Amino acid sequence: MDAALKQALDTWVDRSSPTLLIEAMRYSVESGGKRLRPILCVAACEAVGGKEVQAMDAACALEFIHAYSLIHDDLPAMDNDDLRRGKPTCHKAFGEAVAVLAGDALLTAAFELLAAGPHAGDIDPAISLAVIRLIAKAAGALGMVQGQMLDITLEGLEAHWEQVQRMQQLKTGALIRASVEAGALLGGASSPTLDCISAFGANIGLAFQMIDDILNVEGNPEILGKPVGSDETMRKATSPAVLGLQAAKVYAAGLLESALAQLVPLGTVGRPLAGLARFIVERKN
Amino acid sequence: MDAALKQALDTWVDRSSPTLLIEAMRYSVESGGKRLRPILCVAACEAVGGKEVQAMDAACALEFIHAYSLIHDDLPAMDNDDLRRGKPTCHKAFGEAVAVLAGDALLTAAFELLAAGPHAGDIDPAISLAVIRLIAKAAGALGMVQGQMLDITLEGLEAHWEQVQRMQQLKTGALIRASVEAGALLGGASSPTLDCISAFGANIGLAFQMIDDILNVEGNPEILGKPVGSDETMRKATSPAVLGLQAAKVYAAGLLESALAQLVPLGTVGRPLAGLARFIVERKN
Repeated sequence: MDAALKQALDTWVDRSSPTLLIEAMRYSVESGGKRLRPILCVAACEAVGGKEVQAMDAACALEFIHAYSLIHDDLPAMDNDDLRRGKPTCHKAFGEAVAVLAGDALLTAAFELLAAGPHAGDIDPAISLAVIRLIAKAAGALGMVQGQMLDITLEGLEAHWEQVQRMQQLKTGALIRASVEAGALLGGASSPTLDCISAFGANIGLAFQMIDDILNVEGNPEILGKPVGSDETMRKATSPAVLGLQAAKVYAAGLLESALAQLVPLGTVGRPLAGLARFIVERKN
Repeated sequence: MDAALKQALDTWVDRSSPTLLIEAMRYSVESGGKRLRPILCVAACEAVGGKEVQAMDAACALEFIHAYSLIHDDLPAMDNDDLRRGKPTCHKAFGEAVAVLAGDALLTAAFELLAAGPHAGDIDPAISLAVIRLIAKAAGALGMVQGQMLDITLEGLEAHWEQVQRMQQLKTGALIRASVEAGALLGGASSPTLDCISAFGANIGLAFQMIDDILNVEGNPEILGKPVGSDETMRKATSPAVLGLQAAKVYAAGLLESALAQLVPLGTVGRPLAGLARFIVERKN
């Protein structure tokens, strides 16, 4: 996946001589991470009988959108984080103005990739439009951006679990769900299969954020590559904070079970997706 | 155009109960302005024989992108402007975090509109993808965002006219050019006509920014709705600064002539576009 992303960056944002803006974009996309969204997108495509190549433009676009969201979330006016994956955040490395613009440019590049990526010629234009629609919806004012807004709004408040759950479904869940939905659409999934994949994505999307919160309480800072305990310091509305640590773990395990149940109709081709779901819940970083 | 934009906002970003994020998005799109990009998009569509309705989703999307770019440009880390069109800028009215997110959400909503707006069913999906591609390209890392980056980089430097011209072509010109190109594509323009429209757009796009700079020197603050002289105070790289006021005016007039020449092959249907080009160069605000 890293090689494909590098290629997407090379062909997509590096066509002119390198500038500070493009350096900042590359810095943020190439700084590692789990590549979970692109991997899920490709796995969902293959699980419904599609080929990796059909999902590759969308996979890279999803990682661009994820990278943009991290750059903007880390800004001083937002979470004000100095470190990300053990390296200075984009605004620490390039300045705040460049970071805002690098995020904007990555978001825009994602849609250019979705509309006209290297593999666009192999995809039915109507499917490409459907994928753009679902990713834009998941990333926008009623999805990820709204989730980030709720995250800021709930900070320091006595939030209910329903509020925290809604925030997490939007902030993190929506784009993870869209990743598998996009892969399945591009792989030519039938409507009932798409429903299963979508429900699977909703479950693992919420589970992913819950595990993130749990690791922020009891994770190993060396394995995580970032300090723990920051959510409590900032009085973030998290699942361990409102449910308690133990109940949050039980809830996340239940989400994993629900996710796996959705894959039963797919048979053995669903196994890689099942493995990814287990990784999400059992990971240590 | 205002009614169409309001409708796009109503159906596109207001489907849930209103939130602060959506208020900030509405505030920025509904704060007036000349609606130049959507009007140019529709006029270009009609000039090649298309119908207004075919260009309407793209027209609204272009205004969303313009609104997002103003919100982010006004941020403290960028131009640090407190007023826009005589009203507090988005971050002054809603706070910096909300302003970053409102810009992000408007950019994302633009692509949702382009892929699945109310009139998407009437447009060939391959044309819609081509429009998304050209708008993303014009707005992104090799277009508008790169122009804003150059604008910041050149501030306070002794810039050459070639550098200023390049910056202005990207910062403002690219999206204006894309507005007429998108309209023409959606209206079914032939390839030679598209070339004329594209050259027309390049000329008026650069002229628009030059006139903006000229008005910042000698405009009437009451008609403009904002103070003049700010470019000189901030040592911005502008056309009057590097060419001199008189030469900048002559250059802009030359761009208008070149733009009008491109419309000759269109005959009388090109007249509304010609009128818009004259407005751009002769305007007082």
